[in-house]
Amino acid sequence: MTTSQRSDPDTVQSAVDGREPFHFHVLATDHATKARLGLIQTPHGPVETPVFMPVGTRGTVKGVTPEMVRDTGARIILGNTYHLYLRPGHELIGRLGGLHRFMNWPGPILTDSGGFQIYSLGKLRKLTEEGYAFQSHIDGSSHVMTPERCINVQEALGSDIMMCLDECTSYPGDRSTIESSLDLTLRWARLCASVHRSHDRALFGISQGGVYPDLRKRGIEALGEIGFDGYALGGLSVGEPKELLYDTVSHAAPLLPPDKPRYLMGVGTPEDILECVAQGIDMFDCVMPTRNARNGMLFTNRGKLVIKNARYRDDGNPLDDQCGCYTCRNYSRAYLRHLFIAREILAIVLNTIHNITFYMNLMNGIREAVRGGYFDSFRKTFLESYRANNEEDAE
Amino acid sequence: MTTSQRSDPDTVQSAVDGREPFHFHVLATDHATKARLGLIQTPHGPVETPVFMPVGTRGTVKGVTPEMVRDTGARIILGNTYHLYLRPGHELIGRLGGLHRFMNWPGPILTDSGGFQIYSLGKLRKLTEEGYAFQSHIDGSSHVMTPERCINVQEALGSDIMMCLDECTSYPGDRSTIESSLDLTLRWARLCASVHRSHDRALFGISQGGVYPDLRKRGIEALGEIGFDGYALGGLSVGEPKELLYDTVSHAAPLLPPDKPRYLMGVGTPEDILECVAQGIDMFDCVMPTRNARNGMLFTNRGKLVIKNARYRDDGNPLDDQCGCYTCRNYSRAYLRHLFIAREILAIVLNTIHNITFYMNLMNGIREAVRGGYFDSFRKTFLESYRANNEEDAE
Repeated sequence: MTTSQRSDPDTVQSAVDGREPFHFHVLATDHATKARLGLIQTPHGPVETPVFMPVGTRGTVKGVTPEMVRDTGARIILGNTYHLYLRPGHELIGRLGGLHRFMNWPGPILTDSGGFQIYSLGKLRKLTEEGYAFQSHIDGSSHVMTPERCINVQEALGSDIMMCLDECTSYPGDRSTIESSLDLTLRWARLCASVHRSHDRALFGISQGGVYPDLRKRGIEALGEIGFDGYALGGLSVGEPKELLYDTVSHAAPLLPPDKPRYLMGVGTPEDILECVAQGIDMFDCVMPTRNARNGMLFTNRGKLVIKNARYRDDGNPLDDQCGCYTCRNYSRAYLRHLFIAREILAIVLNTIHNITFYMNLMNGIREAVRGGYFDSFRKTFLESYRANNEEDAE
Repeated sequence: MTTSQRSDPDTVQSAVDGREPFHFHVLATDHATKARLGLIQTPHGPVETPVFMPVGTRGTVKGVTPEMVRDTGARIILGNTYHLYLRPGHELIGRLGGLHRFMNWPGPILTDSGGFQIYSLGKLRKLTEEGYAFQSHIDGSSHVMTPERCINVQEALGSDIMMCLDECTSYPGDRSTIESSLDLTLRWARLCASVHRSHDRALFGISQGGVYPDLRKRGIEALGEIGFDGYALGGLSVGEPKELLYDTVSHAAPLLPPDKPRYLMGVGTPEDILECVAQGIDMFDCVMPTRNARNGMLFTNRGKLVIKNARYRDDGNPLDDQCGCYTCRNYSRAYLRHLFIAREILAIVLNTIHNITFYMNLMNGIREAVRGGYFDSFRKTFLESYRANNEEDAE
């Protein structure tokens, strides 16, 4: 975002409202790794980075109230454009005052472009230069999503950080497919930037190019020429081996403009986050903490815990004795096991609170470590404890 | 409860802990009806009557945290002995400090006897003088529930108000069946009273006798001779016509000892509660507010509202403009409709908060009206508004 854009009418209006337009500052950089500490300002408040964004697909982080989300330490959540566009509809949400008001979340919201969901959930009928023609996974109705419309939808939702429409490719993809997909995504990125009106809100470009270093490099340079408020690495965490994910991030992250936030989409596990923070990534999102919570897989400082296991039947201890979340302060493993086995709704509520808090505590620990100059040792100590007693491996 | 029982070891212990033993006082009686205002003291705090108890079947009021329950105004909840006995087991709950601690509900808890659930959910194998032999509805395992064991189980749970094991009969039942069932229930009531040890906690007798006035009368007199801390009308709200429910309550309630709480089990609708408070009933419980919440049937001062109806699609108003609950303060009907149609878990959370709050506001209104001497006009005004726009009738 250039300084001249601050005279945009929307930005003026937000200044009148006392809202700050989107901007970003790097506050500190780690000496031993590429990790960095930053601050994103949005019209709905500040966000410290590195940050993890809980996923609120359909206007709710599944199973918890906004106050519960806030109490975990979360300051920004992700909303899914595809889901909200189809139901209840961006126009309805816009008429009712925007997504923040609709779902009672006063903090910042990032919306994805919906491209990934059209690809993975919808019945894709046709991909053309103009966009996606697809059928709703809910009722089979026909829709067209163009880059321009994608931005219109996100602006109607009132998103603080919007994402460009991109073409998603699966792993593995042959080089020529990945390359033509990259070129289409770049042409769409230009269209998205050209229709972006609410300049107090951010628009992020998405880097594609699969696991091909030269394609990643070309894509990132082209996005930088267009000029975005932040840059995402897309098309990762789609089934490639961990080493390829880490290699690609390690290669691509330093190419991203250093004065803008860097967002690794759809990542990931605590290990992934620690590794990728070390490569200079600032923003993450993943369904893992919330989805695992619903499946009874709980994160602790000693690794994952499978709450249905018989060993917790009589266990009066909290899930994680290093966690101060509402769930750990008030409930035993025995109770959480009982709720899960009885399929009680409260199991989802309590598990979700805990898992999001675990991620927020991890991110807070990361930020403190970068600030204090001990991120590298924090990462090693954390992973040692985390891997010590991980039940995931025992399943 | 006699004064001499206050020297019981459990009572002494509770006095040491600063807990008050169970007792009850009638504070005011309505002049135009038989409605009364009362105060129950329990080891876990006071409860004003008339009171409605949300149902927390398996150690949780479905879908909400204890703090959410408390915030609705609820001060006492009901736990189901049958469910907790089978899973996770009363002994486990006892070892972990009792039901209050297990489920993080610091207020009073009433537990039912489980008789009704054995009858309706379990596979009843044999009913004898000794008790029920039945199979678990969960795993088919064999169990025997005797009157003595029923009290042991409730004492292990740490219940503030326990219920005697009774034999449940269905409606309609022929007179001889109802009569022999009444006699068995009375013999069981004597056994329950004889093993009741925790005298700071209450034990309530249950009146049976179906819709036969003379059987009800005989049963109530016999229970009074045994002497209980409170008296329930059981075997009602099991399919009989409304008039028979009201007639039976109208006849039986005045026969119950006036200095003890009167509890009408499993009732009911707002109309039922208003009618039966007018007959002198002090305590109610029903799954209606919580179950209806899960089904999207919401109580408002203008009648029931079916949230999935298309008319609420764009409705930015709160559910009930006379309600100050968390849901009504923060969310629109359009959002609640969206959550319900998308089958989001938060729909259950928000709907449950609202419906319990509606019941609590009703009970608070009733108590204020009895206190202020205008209960009869309160009842009429409430029902007029409530019936004005009831969507239930339109379904």
